Amino acid sequence: MNLLLSRQDVDFQLFDWLSVEDLLGRDLYAEHDLPTLRSVLNLAEDMASGLFFSHARQADIEEPTLSAEGKVDLPEEVRTALKGLANAGFIATSMPVSAGGMQLPFVLDKAAFAWFQAANAATSGYALLSMAAANLLLEHGSEEQRARYVPRLADGTDFATMCLSEPQAGSSLSDIRTTAKPAGGGQYRIFGNKMWISGGDHELSDSITHLVLARTEGAPPGVKGLSLFLVPKILTSEDGGRIRNDVTVAGLNHKMGQRGTVNAALNFGEGRHKPFGEAGAVGYRVGAEGAGLTCMFTMMNEARIAVGASAAAIGYSGYLHALDYARSRPQGRLPGSKDPESPQVPIIQHTDVKQMLLYQKAVVEGALALNLYCARLIDDIRSMPAEHTEDVRLLLELLTPVAKSWPSKYCLRANDLAIQVHGGYGYTRDYNVERLYRDNRLNPIHEGTHGIQGLDLLGRKVVMQDGRALNVFREKVMQACDQAGPGSRMLAEMSRKLAEYLDDMIEATHVLHAADDKAETLANSSIYLDAFGHLTISWIWLSKLLAIGERSTPYFEGKKAAAKFFFAQELPKVGTAIQLLKSKDRTALDMEPEYF
Amino acid sequence: MNLLLSRQDVDFQLFDWLSVEDLLGRDLYAEHDLPTLRSVLNLAEDMASGLFFSHARQADIEEPTLSAEGKVDLPEEVRTALKGLANAGFIATSMPVSAGGMQLPFVLDKAAFAWFQAANAATSGYALLSMAAANLLLEHGSEEQRARYVPRLADGTDFATMCLSEPQAGSSLSDIRTTAKPAGGGQYRIFGNKMWISGGDHELSDSITHLVLARTEGAPPGVKGLSLFLVPKILTSEDGGRIRNDVTVAGLNHKMGQRGTVNAALNFGEGRHKPFGEAGAVGYRVGAEGAGLTCMFTMMNEARIAVGASAAAIGYSGYLHALDYARSRPQGRLPGSKDPESPQVPIIQHTDVKQMLLYQKAVVEGALALNLYCARLIDDIRSMPAEHTEDVRLLLELLTPVAKSWPSKYCLRANDLAIQVHGGYGYTRDYNVERLYRDNRLNPIHEGTHGIQGLDLLGRKVVMQDGRALNVFREKVMQACDQAGPGSRMLAEMSRKLAEYLDDMIEATHVLHAADDKAETLANSSIYLDAFGHLTISWIWLSKLLAIGERSTPYFEGKKAAAKFFFAQELPKVGTAIQLLKSKDRTALDMEPEYF
Repeated sequence: MNLLLSRQDVDFQLFDWLSVEDLLGRDLYAEHDLPTLRSVLNLAEDMASGLFFSHARQADIEEPTLSAEGKVDLPEEVRTALKGLANAGFIATSMPVSAGGMQLPFVLDKAAFAWFQAANAATSGYALLSMAAANLLLEHGSEEQRARYVPRLADGTDFATMCLSEPQAGSSLSDIRTTAKPAGGGQYRIFGNKMWISGGDHELSDSITHLVLARTEGAPPGVKGLSLFLVPKILTSEDGGRIRNDVTVAGLNHKMGQRGTVNAALNFGEGRHKPFGEAGAVGYRVGAEGAGLTCMFTMMNEARIAVGASAAAIGYSGYLHALDYARSRPQGRLPGSKDPESPQVPIIQHTDVKQMLLYQKAVVEGALALNLYCARLIDDIRSMPAEHTEDVRLLLELLTPVAKSWPSKYCLRANDLAIQVHGGYGYTRDYNVERLYRDNRLNPIHEGTHGIQGLDLLGRKVVMQDGRALNVFREKVMQACDQAGPGSRMLAEMSRKLAEYLDDMIEATHVLHAADDKAETLANSSIYLDAFGHLTISWIWLSKLLAIGERSTPYFEGKKAAAKFFFAQELPKVGTAIQLLKSKDRTALDMEPEYF
Repeated sequence: MNLLLSRQDVDFQLFDWLSVEDLLGRDLYAEHDLPTLRSVLNLAEDMASGLFFSHARQADIEEPTLSAEGKVDLPEEVRTALKGLANAGFIATSMPVSAGGMQLPFVLDKAAFAWFQAANAATSGYALLSMAAANLLLEHGSEEQRARYVPRLADGTDFATMCLSEPQAGSSLSDIRTTAKPAGGGQYRIFGNKMWISGGDHELSDSITHLVLARTEGAPPGVKGLSLFLVPKILTSEDGGRIRNDVTVAGLNHKMGQRGTVNAALNFGEGRHKPFGEAGAVGYRVGAEGAGLTCMFTMMNEARIAVGASAAAIGYSGYLHALDYARSRPQGRLPGSKDPESPQVPIIQHTDVKQMLLYQKAVVEGALALNLYCARLIDDIRSMPAEHTEDVRLLLELLTPVAKSWPSKYCLRANDLAIQVHGGYGYTRDYNVERLYRDNRLNPIHEGTHGIQGLDLLGRKVVMQDGRALNVFREKVMQACDQAGPGSRMLAEMSRKLAEYLDDMIEATHVLHAADDKAETLANSSIYLDAFGHLTISWIWLSKLLAIGERSTPYFEGKKAAAKFFFAQELPKVGTAIQLLKSKDRTALDMEPEYF
């Protein structure tokens, strides 16, 4: 048994629940068959264990360092793993054949990639950025940009970054100050300081494709003045030589976890290098002037779902570690069995330990499912006529903040419980669960904090197009409820409860948006986000039970128990949250900063 | 402003809320006056910043190492801090004058010590063990043991350990295998392996007083066969020379946090040293044969409350760090203020940030208060005639698992939110909140895991003496409710809600204990523990509001807001939990291990 993901569960989710084989009937994916999909998963599972998991601990201990010459050094194992990943085609799994990809279903890609995320979130992070950057360029890049940069990302020759944050502009992108000056011939020169750049510098690839938000001269203030630029670490001279662009590492961040992903402050245009004889980082605009944030959102939305998937995968691996430990660690006896000379039982027999494991199982399997569900929506968007996918797009937009934030918060709690199951051992750095927690702690922070996702969901997503996305969501949930209603007593009871909370949640949404001012509407948006997430995961679980149907092996009984657990112990918390939301509690809103 | 604790709050809790000055009217504390108490707090505050906080980061980075000669090396700053602490009398603050102490109120001692715990949990841990060991010896030691060992602990000449766990016996103490063989002259020889020994070895003190649970030859199996032994690291020869006892370090644990507290596996009697010419660690029995666990519980109970206090203090410091950051970090603008050229606001103005800060404030101030309340009960026990303190003892016994576990779980969540308030900065090791989280993560694990505390509360404490402790608790809570009832609308509403949940909680207790089998009663004991804790903290907050009375400065308005927040956002969760408890949910209990 590997301790990354459950292959049985991944197969169940893909083939039983999400009916991935249906996709193979569509033109886009017609070249593939089921055995191909399975062999891709086989390979991912093997490589994740053999190349990624194998150096996860080492990469945590041997953090990236900045040499005197300004080079970032990483363990050789990171490079080897990424080369292996790229050579096996895993960066380009779902990219179009025309761009050097395998054009496999996106959901299969994400399921395969989840193995690498579970095995080693830090090393897999480099590939994740390449995928999202390539997709951004495929959507917004010029023909020349697509032809020149995407294949190099697809085959691992280059890696990529997202350069958004600056010291004064973290969550507030409208405060970005980096500037771009036209330099003729379609070139710009970029000047500014970027912060928190994952994969910001390293020697893992020939070059790095930085995607940089900057402000052109004379552009309006705020996000409307932002344009997107592609800034290669290495430029090419007319004779094909390598020219170092004017991008330098100002320093490395020393993180709690995900230490194998170098994270840097980058200076653009500080003049350390003078490409073509002049200071200033050479960049090329991607998309229209002023459309920078819109273009970047292609990458950000993909990254947000990828962050959710990473959180789910890290939580999943923590769960399997805890399960493995609980099965093998004897300690104590069951209530009523007081003979101190009787053998100790494995701790998995203690109800409190089963409680912690059930929580983890319900949360991590639910979170992975939500993320694969979103990936499946992307397949629909890609493979169906655009006129049939408007609702799918809306549902995806609605679910994106949930798919990013819910796993980031609750799979982190699962990781916390994985430590707890291990007792004192879990608190030592000799056991992986300690690192897994630290790795996952990043996810509620980057790619839009938890708070930002709450504002996005409540302030924007549920009301866009007069609430059409919310209606689509409601229909989907009610569809599951209607299907489950006539089923077993358990299913009927679950569907009744879910429908009730769904109505209540929608009512709360209306109540909040009927508030006098926007500040009051949004005052408890994080609570709204969490509750909406719990509701979503309950729906996901009900829907998975429908896919199980009458089957009753131990494996499926476990899934039923996890669903039952979530409905019994977690879903009722939605009710408490909704009461609070409906009361439009103003305690935090009204709190004067000087009262603290 | 220091970032450890709020002095204003500590003063409020001690002097306004807990009426510590009343204690000075009792014989035991009659030698002291209020200015003395305040000057002790002043000194603690200063030393905590100057000697403890100053090296907290360093001690985290420069972990203890084991030299080739088997010596444990620690940064010199740890020794300097502990010497300073001991010289200022802080180890012996509340010990009797007859034992070399200052005989100050225990609650004052704990409030003073909380500064050191907030500043540097790891370094203060050594002192905490000395205090608890000294108190154990004062209660259970022979006259000779008290005279010989306690003064050395009180003045920092020696430090101490609790040696309970073994590789096969963590939570299950009945499986302890270490043996003690009588060796004549009141001596025993101890043989066995102990795990997770905090302060297990170091060069910080002349000797180390190990308090070791072991089994005498022929003793019955289980906890009834355990006796307690004092095993000094250094023995004294007849001519006063130093003899190394047969206790050796088998290895050091490398922890997630609290790295400055060395944590070791110790081998007793492996024969590396041969005191008086023979292998075997020389030990002296403390208390009667077979009474080892009872004696040890004196130390464990004190340590449990100390762990809760440590958790509260670490959470408190995290909160103050987050508050400080939120006040100084400009980012974004308020809803409705969309002009991108207007200055950014400090993030403390964002409702979601205020929400996170209010949570932290409500939790950490509540948790510290609960622990000081327990310390105040100990003062009553110490300073009042025994015949008047039976109810106080029972209340303390009931609250001990709550005071240990609630801060350990929820102040850790506060630490998590302190990271979140810091955004990306909080995820770096350059900011203290990252370390504070790691330090606090130990607390739900050691001194009885969260699960063990739940079993203790629900399985033992609420039913002991036919539920008398629970009745005492009920009376205390109702006393606050009755007093608050006729107050302001807010107080009246709070008292109504609290009384309602209290009744519901007691009813749930009866329902659970009416279950058919003990396994069903205890199946959700961790949920019971959490809910009971939330109820307790709500009571503490109501009681603090009563102490505030009509006062309405910004400072007191902040406290009212924190209380209001806890009642609005946290107390209702108790209702959800009670529903679950009353339903006697069997999902985890019935889950077959092979279904996972």
